[in-house]
Amino acid sequence: MNILTLTTDFGRDSSYVAQMKGVLLSLCNQPPLIVDVSHSVPPQDVFAGAFLLEDVCHRFPPGTLHLAVVDPGVGTSRKIVYAELGEQKFIGPDNGLLSLTASLLGIRRIISLENKELWLKDRSATFHGRDIMTPVAAAVLNGTDPIQFGPLLERLVEIPSPKVESLRDGSLRGEVIHVDSFGNLITNISESDLRDDEYEILPATVRIADVVIEGLSKTYGQSPPGSLIALIALIGSGGRLEIAVVNGNAAERLKVGRGETVEVRL
Amino acid sequence: MNILTLTTDFGRDSSYVAQMKGVLLSLCNQPPLIVDVSHSVPPQDVFAGAFLLEDVCHRFPPGTLHLAVVDPGVGTSRKIVYAELGEQKFIGPDNGLLSLTASLLGIRRIISLENKELWLKDRSATFHGRDIMTPVAAAVLNGTDPIQFGPLLERLVEIPSPKVESLRDGSLRGEVIHVDSFGNLITNISESDLRDDEYEILPATVRIADVVIEGLSKTYGQSPPGSLIALIALIGSGGRLEIAVVNGNAAERLKVGRGETVEVRL
Amino acid sequence: MNILTLTTDFGRDSSYVAQMKGVLLSLCNQPPLIVDVSHSVPPQDVFAGAFLLEDVCHRFPPGTLHLAVVDPGVGTSRKIVYAELGEQKFIGPDNGLLSLTASLLGIRRIISLENKELWLKDRSATFHGRDIMTPVAAAVLNGTDPIQFGPLLERLVEIPSPKVESLRDGSLRGEVIHVDSFGNLITNISESDLRDDEYEILPATVRIADVVIEGLSKTYGQSPPGSLIALIALIGSGGRLEIAVVNGNAAERLKVGRGETVEVRL
Repeated sequence: MNILTLTTDFGRDSSYVAQMKGVLLSLCNQPPLIVDVSHSVPPQDVFAGAFLLEDVCHRFPPGTLHLAVVDPGVGTSRKIVYAELGEQKFIGPDNGLLSLTASLLGIRRIISLENKELWLKDRSATFHGRDIMTPVAAAVLNGTDPIQFGPLLERLVEIPSPKVESLRDGSLRGEVIHVDSFGNLITNISESDLRDDEYEILPATVRIADVVIEGLSKTYGQSPPGSLIALIALIGSGGRLEIAVVNGNAAERLKVGRGETVEVRL
Repeated sequence: MNILTLTTDFGRDSSYVAQMKGVLLSLCNQPPLIVDVSHSVPPQDVFAGAFLLEDVCHRFPPGTLHLAVVDPGVGTSRKIVYAELGEQKFIGPDNGLLSLTASLLGIRRIISLENKELWLKDRSATFHGRDIMTPVAAAVLNGTDPIQFGPLLERLVEIPSPKVESLRDGSLRGEVIHVDSFGNLITNISESDLRDDEYEILPATVRIADVVIEGLSKTYGQSPPGSLIALIALIGSGGRLEIAVVNGNAAERLKVGRGETVEVRL
Repeated sequence: MNILTLTTDFGRDSSYVAQMKGVLLSLCNQPPLIVDVSHSVPPQDVFAGAFLLEDVCHRFPPGTLHLAVVDPGVGTSRKIVYAELGEQKFIGPDNGLLSLTASLLGIRRIISLENKELWLKDRSATFHGRDIMTPVAAAVLNGTDPIQFGPLLERLVEIPSPKVESLRDGSLRGEVIHVDSFGNLITNISESDLRDDEYEILPATVRIADVVIEGLSKTYGQSPPGSLIALIALIGSGGRLEIAVVNGNAAERLKVGRGETVEVRL
């Protein structure tokens, strides 16, 4: 059974998602298993969508098709692509949405969707997710050779992604790149940034929003809830440095969000 | 594989939706592919549900069964119906919820659900979606002849739907009938209202909330974001006149919502 | 086709849910039908999750596997269990989450998940839902004998659950244990508490937040909307005493929520 995932900024219960599913099921020879990754990417927030895809897609079985639509440039000259990244397949606008995943998994093949014969005949200028990307997704699931979709491309548009800086005193400066639904603050500082030459995690002091956290915890439940020490730093399940509050919400407690500076002294 | 869609005002994560799915799967010979269209119809808002169904259902393959529950009159004398509209099948309360779709697709057959032998034996007075509609949906999916569900009806209850007025000076007056998740304001003025005898879209000036928008854009990305002209009017993907803000939220910008008057001078 | 339900506090559109689905599909021989019960359990609110499971699970076909993750103690010494309760199967943390369902359906077998060979090799300390519970769920779906998961346990951790008190004057005192998406206030007083020896429902006067409601209604639409009498009490679809507002929201009207005292005089 084919697997198709969907990631959009359409809102979970918007009719746009259901319209895409209807078109897809109308065109597929065999209905795939559809997994909604998220339809709550903040509107037009390409980076948030790119981060989500990078976080999730490699967990799926090889050959899974990921259809991703965060597309503020719909109807303009931006390209739409079919991409094979690692063992996964993708369809989406070429606006940076796929670029973090491409860095993670490696590019095998990129094709620009230009063969209009595969698209819906009655197309809008504002909903290429339904009118172009979904019919091509159905073609992929039906086994059409991607060569028919359009010409090969050499590279994907890349999205600017905040880098971790090494400061003069040996500290690292990164930032919060995502706030999860628990209010955990997920940073761009990765586990490997915190290891020494012998692959041991170093003792670290983390500073965020004028608060200093001494040492890394192993898990969310490790410190007594409610105490001052309830603010903890740890390596989260995605291998990134996270700031959390035991049984609480760090984003609310610290009143910070994406873009907030985080410094680590090792 | 059978396809069943669900549209309710139960809230996406309420147990009511899961209970219906549990009952359905307990009664179906073969599990269908279940598509959640929306469970975020505003509570008891039959018009919003009717608009959503009209917008979405015709996109699905012929023979799809759509189960729709926005049912403020549950337990009172309103009927519950099985309806074949165009090539699609529906089950829902007969309170106007299906009437916009009936106008769009045409009525083939309506049956009043009255055969209690098909319903759950242990029925509540407050959850006919689970106790009556879902078991009948399972019967449809299992291939039971709908003749067994109850007597034929001649018509569906219709829901009042705002009409577009032609003003003396040739302008059109309509209104916002839906705000999508991007804040786009979707009106009851359709593309065909804006065409001349030769099927060309006429130049139009759109007025909403004391703001005047000159001309129609082709797509959301067409005007420079942030400028005053970022407020645009266009024909949306459902063939309706929409007011949008480039990379922004028109409902928030204009502080308007459903029911707001929109005038178009051609 | 196997059925798997998911109940978590991860947030509907968080990547955590999608990661679990990706891991599951990567490990299952045949993809199951996945039903999302809810991902909006309030964060770390074990009782809310336990109530939801009790409300929903028995509706599913025998043999359904329910994977439930509300796990504030992840990474600490709390156990993780596989449980056969009635005809249903469960995987979740042993923190009370399964205990209300266990009381309802009866315990057939409980196994502590301790066989690490079945888990993901690269495990985090913070996401056992993905790294331990999901691989074991895949093992269940693939037909692995649960004996291999770990040692038998005799009982589950129980969650404190508010009890209905009988007062000296014969009244009952209970409380609101759940507010549904319509704002209906669902109490821990059950239909059977309100019946006499001959199994008839007694006339009842319900008091909540200094408001007195005379008599029970049959359904939500029974009283004229907007009048004072629009506040009604009824037996809801789960067999519990509920307070509702006809076409309205009782939680907002009364400004009360979970924990609010409810008294019934029979």
